[in-house]
Parts: sequence; C-alpha cells; structure tokens
Amino acid sequence: MIVIMQQGATEAQADHVIERVEQLGLTPHVSRGQFRTIVGAIGDKQPAHQAILEALDGVERVVPITKPFKLASREFHSEDSVVEVGGVPIGGSAVVVIAGPCAIENADMLNRIASAVAERGAVLLRGGAFKPRTSPYDFQGLGEEGLKMLRETGDNLSMPIVSEVLNAAQVELVGQYVDMFQIGARNIQNFQLLREVGDFGKPVLLKRGFASTVREYLMSAEYILSRGNRNVVLCERGIKTFATEVRFTLDISAVPVIKNYSHLPVIVDPSHAAGARQYVNALALAGIAAGADGIIVEVNDRPEESLCDGPQALLPDMFSELVGQIEKVAAAIGRTMVNTNKKKKG
Amino acid sequence: MIVIMQQGATEAQADHVIERVEQLGLTPHVSRGQFRTIVGAIGDKQPAHQAILEALDGVERVVPITKPFKLASREFHSEDSVVEVGGVPIGGSAVVVIAGPCAIENADMLNRIASAVAERGAVLLRGGAFKPRTSPYDFQGLGEEGLKMLRETGDNLSMPIVSEVLNAAQVELVGQYVDMFQIGARNIQNFQLLREVGDFGKPVLLKRGFASTVREYLMSAEYILSRGNRNVVLCERGIKTFATEVRFTLDISAVPVIKNYSHLPVIVDPSHAAGARQYVNALALAGIAAGADGIIVEVNDRPEESLCDGPQALLPDMFSELVGQIEKVAAAIGRTMVNTNKKKKG
Amino acid sequence: MIVIMQQGATEAQADHVIERVEQLGLTPHVSRGQFRTIVGAIGDKQPAHQAILEALDGVERVVPITKPFKLASREFHSEDSVVEVGGVPIGGSAVVVIAGPCAIENADMLNRIASAVAERGAVLLRGGAFKPRTSPYDFQGLGEEGLKMLRETGDNLSMPIVSEVLNAAQVELVGQYVDMFQIGARNIQNFQLLREVGDFGKPVLLKRGFASTVREYLMSAEYILSRGNRNVVLCERGIKTFATEVRFTLDISAVPVIKNYSHLPVIVDPSHAAGARQYVNALALAGIAAGADGIIVEVNDRPEESLCDGPQALLPDMFSELVGQIEKVAAAIGRTMVNTNKKKKG
Amino acid sequence: MIVIMQQGATEAQADHVIERVEQLGLTPHVSRGQFRTIVGAIGDKQPAHQAILEALDGVERVVPITKPFKLASREFHSEDSVVEVGGVPIGGSAVVVIAGPCAIENADMLNRIASAVAERGAVLLRGGAFKPRTSPYDFQGLGEEGLKMLRETGDNLSMPIVSEVLNAAQVELVGQYVDMFQIGARNIQNFQLLREVGDFGKPVLLKRGFASTVREYLMSAEYILSRGNRNVVLCERGIKTFATEVRFTLDISAVPVIKNYSHLPVIVDPSHAAGARQYVNALALAGIAAGADGIIVEVNDRPEESLCDGPQALLPDMFSELVGQIEKVAAAIGRTMVNTNKKKKG
Repeated sequence: MIVIMQQGATEAQADHVIERVEQLGLTPHVSRGQFRTIVGAIGDKQPAHQAILEALDGVERVVPITKPFKLASREFHSEDSVVEVGGVPIGGSAVVVIAGPCAIENADMLNRIASAVAERGAVLLRGGAFKPRTSPYDFQGLGEEGLKMLRETGDNLSMPIVSEVLNAAQVELVGQYVDMFQIGARNIQNFQLLREVGDFGKPVLLKRGFASTVREYLMSAEYILSRGNRNVVLCERGIKTFATEVRFTLDISAVPVIKNYSHLPVIVDPSHAAGARQYVNALALAGIAAGADGIIVEVNDRPEESLCDGPQALLPDMFSELVGQIEKVAAAIGRTMVNTNKKKKG
Repeated sequence: MIVIMQQGATEAQADHVIERVEQLGLTPHVSRGQFRTIVGAIGDKQPAHQAILEALDGVERVVPITKPFKLASREFHSEDSVVEVGGVPIGGSAVVVIAGPCAIENADMLNRIASAVAERGAVLLRGGAFKPRTSPYDFQGLGEEGLKMLRETGDNLSMPIVSEVLNAAQVELVGQYVDMFQIGARNIQNFQLLREVGDFGKPVLLKRGFASTVREYLMSAEYILSRGNRNVVLCERGIKTFATEVRFTLDISAVPVIKNYSHLPVIVDPSHAAGARQYVNALALAGIAAGADGIIVEVNDRPEESLCDGPQALLPDMFSELVGQIEKVAAAIGRTMVNTNKKKKG
Repeated sequence: MIVIMQQGATEAQADHVIERVEQLGLTPHVSRGQFRTIVGAIGDKQPAHQAILEALDGVERVVPITKPFKLASREFHSEDSVVEVGGVPIGGSAVVVIAGPCAIENADMLNRIASAVAERGAVLLRGGAFKPRTSPYDFQGLGEEGLKMLRETGDNLSMPIVSEVLNAAQVELVGQYVDMFQIGARNIQNFQLLREVGDFGKPVLLKRGFASTVREYLMSAEYILSRGNRNVVLCERGIKTFATEVRFTLDISAVPVIKNYSHLPVIVDPSHAAGARQYVNALALAGIAAGADGIIVEVNDRPEESLCDGPQALLPDMFSELVGQIEKVAAAIGRTMVNTNKKKKG
Repeated sequence: MIVIMQQGATEAQADHVIERVEQLGLTPHVSRGQFRTIVGAIGDKQPAHQAILEALDGVERVVPITKPFKLASREFHSEDSVVEVGGVPIGGSAVVVIAGPCAIENADMLNRIASAVAERGAVLLRGGAFKPRTSPYDFQGLGEEGLKMLRETGDNLSMPIVSEVLNAAQVELVGQYVDMFQIGARNIQNFQLLREVGDFGKPVLLKRGFASTVREYLMSAEYILSRGNRNVVLCERGIKTFATEVRFTLDISAVPVIKNYSHLPVIVDPSHAAGARQYVNALALAGIAAGADGIIVEVNDRPEESLCDGPQALLPDMFSELVGQIEKVAAAIGRTMVNTNKKKKG
C-alpha cells in the first residue's frame, strides 16, 4: 500500500500515519517530496488496513499494490486451471460448448432440445429448474421436478448437466442432481451461497455480475476457493452500460483481463448479453477468438412457445452453424473443441 | 403491448402475430402503415407475453405500455404511503434521520455513537451485525452478538433499530431483534430473501442495487409487497458509472422518478455513495431538496479505529451540522423533521 | 508518479526504469519489497512521462500523484473564483438563476419568455441561436439573426446574455453579441474551440461532457485558462449511464467534488439532465443544496409549439415556484440569491 | 410514432393530441383501451415531431417506430457498401488491416514503423499529425509537417494513408494530403466538421464516440452522408463504462448491431479500447470473429521513446502474429484478407 498525503498535510499528520503503519505490523517507507509526503507500507496487509489509513487526517488516498484476491490469482497458481465436470474438461487447450433451453418447461421439450444440441456438438447440458425472475408474477421454474428431468435426460445422452442454484438453502437439493452448479449474475455477491457451494465441493459456473468489476468478480470466486473448492469456472455474460441496443454489453476485454489476472477457466454467455438470437453467433465467436475456454448458449426449437427468454434462444440450425464456426475459429488460434464422441471413443 | 413488425415483414407473419395475440387472450388492434404493420395487444397481459411475441418471425420489437409493477405503482395507490417503524413514521410530511455506525464492533463504541446521534437528532439507529464484504478475508460482523447490543442500545435510547439481513436463512434470527430489516444493494435480486421478509411482515428498508434501473428496483419491492407486506421503504444509494471520483454515483433523479412511479417512501444514503466523509453532507442535503423522505448516514467518533468504512463515516460534529441544515432545507420546501423528543412528549 | 513493477519483474528491468526516470530529469526513490519493487519519481513531471514509464518492460502500472490540471486547481488558487458576466457575479455567496428558451425561434417568443423569466427572478438570459442537433434534419437554429434578437431583448431587459458557440470559426461572430459563451457537452473536447474562446477572453460557461470524468472536465477548462482567460464557469448537466428513466443522470456529487478540486464556480443544468419538466425543479433544488453556485434552466410558455426540447421546458408558473424555493434552500445553507432589482437599485 | 397517453389522461387531452397529429400532416390511428388511449401517427415524420407531441398535456411518452437515420440505414441500401480508399476496398468479403504509429514523431520513426507494418500485411497506413490531447500541456503533433512525412512514406510504400482531422478549419489542409480522413471519438458530434468532410468528398473513417449509442453514432454518419459523401467507414473503439481494468470497454456487440441497422462498413480499433498492448490481439481477433470488416491498430518498435500512447502500441512481432491469426480467423468465417501484394500483382 502507498499512502499519499494531501499537499497541505502537516508533518504531525504524516508522523501519525507512520505510527499507525507501524501499529498495523507494517514497515513504513517514507518519501518526502517538495510538495507532499508519500508513505509506503510494506508487509503482510489485511484488507481492512486500507480503510484504516484512508480515515486518517491529512491522507489524500491510499493506493493498494497487491491485488485483493489470492487463490484466484495467477501469482498463486501460474498454470491455467482445468475444471473437470463429469468427465468434460473446461479450461484446457480445447474449447467447450454448453447448450440447452433457458428453462426446463416439460420433459418433452427438454428431450427434444437436449438431443438436438447433443447431436450438433454440445458436450454439457444446461437447463433452468429454479429461475430468478425480475417479476414475482413470471414463471419461476419447475423446481426439483425440473432437476429430475434434467438428470434423466443428461444420463440418457451421456451429457453432464449444469443448472442454477438460487440460494444457500437450495444447495443440498440442487447438488444431488447436477454435475455443476450455476450461480447467476444476480447472486454474484450472495456470499452465503458462495460459501455453501464452496463447501459442497462440486464444480461451479460463476457468472459475472452485471455491475461487477473484474476485481470484484474474482473476489467472489475467492469466496468459493477459500472454502477449499478449486473447481470454479468464470463466465462473462455482459454488463450494464448506457448502450441498450442489446440487453447487456458483452465485455469482451474481460476475457484476456481475467486470463492475465487469474488461472481460472473463463467462458462467455452470448445469449443473455445479446437478448436477441440474431446477435448470438457473432458474440459467441468473438468470445472464442478473444481466448475464452468455451461458451454457454440457449437453444430452443420452438421459441415462440417458450415461457422464458424465447427471443434470445438459437434455433437448432443456427446452433449447428455456430458449432461448425467455433471449431474453425478455435483452430485458427491453435485450439481444438471438446468433442464428446471422440471423448467416448477415446 | 404494441408489436412493431419489421419493415419487410410479410402479411403471413403479421397474421401469425395477430393469431398469437388472440391465443394469449388479448384483443389485437391492427394498424397497417405504408411501410410496416403495428399490432396493439389489449387486455390483461402476463409478464411472459412480451417475450412470446418478440420471439415470432417478422417482429422487430415489442413495446410494453403498462409498467411491470402493480402494488408498488402510484396507479394502484395514489396517496404517499407512510411506513411506521417502532413509532417513527417514514414517508409523511416530515423527513427522518437514521444514523449509526457502519458495523457494530463492540458495545462501547455502539453506545458512544448511538448516544451521539440520538442527542443530535437521529430518530432511528442503524448498525451492521452481519456485514456483506467483497473480500472473504474482511471482518464479517459480530453476528447475533451485535444484534443483541443494538437492541439493548436502541431500547436504552428509545430508538427503533434497523440492521441488515443477508440471506433468507437469517430472517427469523434478525427479525427477533430489529424493528426494520435492511436489505443491501447486493441482495436487490435475492428473490428468496425478498419473499421471506415479505412473509415476516416487519418493515423493510430496501436499498437500490447499484445496477438496478428504477423499474427493476420497483419490481424487487413488488416481491415483498406481493407477500402482503406493505411496509417497504426505498433507498437510493448510488449506482455504478464511469465516474469514479466518488464510490458510487448518487442518482438524485431517482428520487422524483420514484415519487412519480410509486407511492412508497424513499430516502437516500449519502455515505455509501460518497465513500468519503467530506462529500456526505452535500449529498444528504441534495437528497432532501430533491424530495426524499429522509436519509440514512454513517457516523463514527473514531473512524480511524474502525474495521469497516471509516473514511465515509461522519464525525459527530459534522453530523450535528448536517441535522441543522436538513431541518432548514426541509422547511424551505415545506416539510418538517421527525423529532423523537417531540414524539415522546406527544 | 509512482512506478509499480510487476511481481516477477527482474532487477535489470527495475534498473532500466530507474535509469529512464533519471533521464526524464526526475529523482528516483526506490523501495524494494519482498515481492515487488516500487520506484517513486520526484520532480517536475511532463504529462507524457506517465506513458513513457508505463511502456517499459516489467512495469505493471504508473500511479500519478499530482492532479493533471494546474490553473483550474484549488492548489493553484485556494479562494473561490467569482466570474462577472455583464455585472452579474457567478460564484460568490449568492446563487444565480439563468433562464430562457431552448432555441430562439422568433422575436416574439423570445420577448415573451425573456420578460417572463426576468420578472420571476432570472438575472441572465439564455437562448440558442446555433443549435447542435443529433439529426441533420432537425431545426439548426436561427444563427446570427437569433443572436441579434437575443442581444436586443437582453438590452431591453437589462439582462446579460449567454448563448452557445458551436465551433472555432464562430467565435468571432458569437463573441460580438454575447456576454458569455456557452460551450455544450458535445464540444467538451473540441480543443480548437476551447483555445479560441480562451483567446477571445469573454466569460465561458463550459458544460461537462456526458462522458467526462471530473478530471477530464477540468482538463478541458485548463485549455481555456491556459490561454489567459480566467472567466470559466463549470456546469454539471448529467452523464450517460444505464439509468434511462431520465435523459441523463445528473451527477450531483460532481458539485462537491469540483468544489474540492477547483476554485471555479459550478452551476447545474437540470433541464437537459431531466429531459422532462416534471423532474426539473427537484434536480435544480438538489443542485443548490449540494453547493452549486446557480442553475441554468429552460423555460417556455408554449412548449408544444416549440421546435426544440419542448418537453423539458418549465412553464412560467413552475419557474416562479422554483425561484421561490431556490431562495429558501439557498438561505438554508447560508447563501443568498443574485437579484437584478437590488443590483439595479444599488 | 406512437403516442402513449397517461393512464388518467382525459378525453379532451387525447382529442388535442389527435388534432395536433393532424396539424403535423400525419394520420392519427386511435386505440382506446380500458385504461389508456394510444394514438398512432402515420405519415412522413419530421424529427421535431416527437418532441412536439411529447410536450402535450396528458402524454406519457412517444415511441418512435422509424429509425432516425435514413441514408445510413439498411432499409435505404440493403447491400453492404464497399468504400474504396486509394484502391483498397473496405467492406467487401475481405478484411482490412490498417496500422501505423499513434503520432508521427519524426520521419525516421515513421519510415521504420511503416515499413514494418507494410511487410507484415498492413494495407493502409495510419499516423497522427494533429493529435487531440486531454491536456493542453501534452505533445499536440507535428501538424502539416507530419502530414507531408506521412504522404511521402505512404507513396514510397504504395500504401494509402489515413490521418485525423481535428476541426472544420483543417479539412482543406488535411484533405490535400490524406486518402482518408479520420474523425476521432471526441468529434463524433462536431457537426460542422462532419458537414465539411461530407462536402470535401474523400473517404471518412468515423470513430464512435465513447458515449454514443449506435443510433446516435449512425446519426453522425448521416451528417456526412447527407452532404453527398457516401464513403463512410465506421469504427468501434470502446465506450465508457464502470469497468476500468482497460481504458474503454470495446462494445463488441456494436459490430453485428451496426451490420443489422446499416450498410456501412465497420472496423474495430483494439488499441484505444485496450490501452495496453497485451490485450490488443485478443480484441482485434474478437472484432474479426464478430464480423468486422477490418481493424486499425497502433504499432511502434520503440514504444518507450514514444510521446503518445506507447503502452498500447503493438511491437512489430506481436503485429506479425496478429496478422497471421486474422487471416485464419477470417477464413474460419468465410472471409479473406485484403492483400496489397496480391492486389498489385492482380
């Protein structure tokens, strides 16, 4: 940490800062310029130290040097992590395609869509059983019934499954069925939920909050990691900005920034960012080109009957085209695609 | 709802939209212009209808006419609501001052600060026992021990108390102690929590999410209201923008916009928006001048010892000055200030 | 400036940074921690130095200590500046009300509106002759004809006038007529225009860009100040955010932040921020309560006939009410209101 | 346009709206629902009509149906436009690479860098002679001297050149030298400049403003197109958001959205968005994968000596790698790369 004193700060104020730095168990390193004094604080900092020093008289601001996350950082673990989900690796040299309907509405629609995406190259099946909805009057999902359908369909197709868990009380229940928990953007700072999935131990797909900075996002991952669960996959899904032609602004730069700061795998969700199917494939390919380890995408063969997010669901043909293009774009940057068939045969 | 067809949409596509509108139980009202067709859909809409129509071929977009919230809307309840918290009214002609420390760190500091704010005009006592922290390594609050201290201190000073509840599992526990739940910005779409405090029935101070639009914010309030709990107080506390000289951008226009859309009381939190005590009073007064029904502010007599947000806490003298100014600004726009002493005597 | 080396930076890289710091005429101040090295650079920096050091191998980032503006800073001039516009002081203990129509559409409407605002307490007259319009097909203003009308009306009512100048080529022309130039949000980094009004010397009302940080904003003011023109008045008028219930988000915290960083007067423009007249008065009062030195507001007695921004124009009665409230809110925080009648009599 | 009346609007208010719609030469199309009345206005609208109707009593809001741009719209011109710049096509099936230094600092550096990028696959040469700088104390470019160097270097290497024009007064001068004008983000609503380059007729690279919506951006293009100059190339270069790990947030979704709304070519500028060279290639490839017609990128062989934006300039080797990857990613989505050598031979 570096404490920058105000231009008019007195020597007594600077001395008090130095004293507090020492009381915190840190070593002060003082630099008195012509106009202002700067105090470096070297040693093993606690997160609270910054605010304590900022609260002192005469301090203009405190600049942290170390990033606030530890276990999520590349300094802690320099190699790319690979998270295995029911035998499917996320984060290695191959990119992964996760697909399925937004919400599970009934067994028939789930089976139809799951078969369609499996045939076309998806290796993990997504589907919402508990749905977070902005309106209390919207369809809230089938709940456990939906999870059972998802489990059965996944087993039939030999696809591991991922589904959203909405709160800490659901972790046990959802954890019985899924291969991977999904935590949605709205829960990015639901710390109790983060701790619980951390304790449960199964892989977690942690979506970025639509107002999270990358640093805050990695701090949320840190909550899971710090409980001993290292199987965290990150997911860029768009942030809130003034640009509202699409639903959220996919922050494509988050992909290389996360790769720089962290060893965790990162995928992109083009469906929620776009909010309209016509833009989904462009965003998905952009994600792969930027270095993402895969995509998660919504597919529906009858979107106009859907109770949830129909306009953003890809039709099976569009999904087919996308998978073909992902394979080629991945190859263009020296990567392959996780392929269940190959995997099964291997 | 108004369905706007694409410029090149075919008649068959328009006919299909009309058919679907009828299937949804709505009455279509068709307007065929020179370049495109527009279909109004009149009747009792469900929230899912918009997405269903948007998913149809040839549809450019669907414009909702009705606001998505009902119980929170001014159309539903045209008079300003007043929420009573332990005898203190929030939302009437008088503005309210809620104050206290960020986190309860021990009984002594709580008593000192609570007495200081009570003497200077605060009528509700705030204090965090369960703290949501971006870092898992930060001080997480004293928990139930803190709530007991807060209850005792509040009782001694005859001040009702408000404290944050972090998740659905805590509602029973926190609800035993507090007069008013606080739900923080991070939990604005923790729907299970919203439902639980809705069911519990005690007043709720619902802070705006830092990425919530006013519409989304009122939809979150609707979750509580729809469980039969009408005692919801809203709180503007700053949003995330590119402007980072302060911690969050206080969206002052949210105050009159909420007053226009909704009958619920709304207060402002200048402390979290500013993140630095030197800006707190200006923002608090702006909130009152814009029509807010009160403020919630952090005060600390020894901020440099604080484990939580010391830099933004007002010193008691600054708080004193603020209360005096609030009284005058309120008077300037024809309002008074809720005064415990008067209340007790009355 | 403080140069923070990457955690894995080599000693050779640090040595090269130190060498470059010396070559730039600065004194290096080195602090080697357990994990990384930090190099302070003390002395008379040039703006380009930061990028030069950031470009060096092994550097993680460079933290500037000094604010980039000089003449605009409070360090340079600790007292509040007062800018006189045709005898009207902006920035002293009294707050100022500037009002008039959005665009000057004809002499009759200008006279009607100008008389109405003068009677009700406005002391400076605004009106657009050259209008910046997002669409090339919109009304672009009356040009010089409009300026003549504005000059004549202002003279008849003994009100100094302010009007927008759109580009450097217009400065001479507009400067012949107005008492104060207005530079709009879209031109905040039209540096040639800033230089030209700097050279011309008349007072300048410089509106914040809707994507300017306060630092960038003050750098734009610095362009004018650095040409020797010290008569700059700042104006917060709303920024672009995800919150779109109103046209722009009035960044009320910019008022105290600017007062902290700079000695220049600052007013607020509630009309453009709100985009709807029903919210204008709340925002105007918030601005005064937050410490602004005045407001600039659009008024129109026949908004539905207006060619420009009719929905946001106050009706004369609403303006009347606003002026009365401004006087009271100003008094509540120990300020008065600039009053032409008193001035004339004095 | 659709005029949505307030829920409590009177019949007289609705009648007045209908009357005004007719006065504007439009045909009203009235739909009286149970709770509110909606008035469609069909016919040849003027941009001012929306505000006129919004200003009427009882109107809640006016929803425009037609997009505000005409000549820029895909409805006006359904095929993708191709803009030729000195023989290099932008916007066809092949993607284009534009490269060069940020600012031209001297002839030697320009020649070195230009040769390096030409050899490695750039087909257009960029370089700044007039630089827009946030600080008046920063290096402002070599001016005309720089343009001469750029012209000479471009001619020697048979590369057309593009350089920024900062204001309307410079158009003649800059237009003598360049093959393509660049208009920077800060000038996106410098309407006089847009008109002047529109009149001059040479191709224009129009960068998106960092706070422009896509609609506003296309309206700025419309200013140029409406003067008869159809040679406009758009460029996404990042917007201002709360996410500040990189300099600007590259809005990758703008690429397919612009392709949907407009026939104009669109490229991306990863250098200014990233602000740091380590992220440039990922963003450039994302742009190509999302469907952009090319990239413009800054390259510098000695960034640490640079007076301008050294940290974001690619080193020649990184640029080499990027060009190879662009060719492969373009191929993956069925496109080629504009290649000067092939072109010349052909």
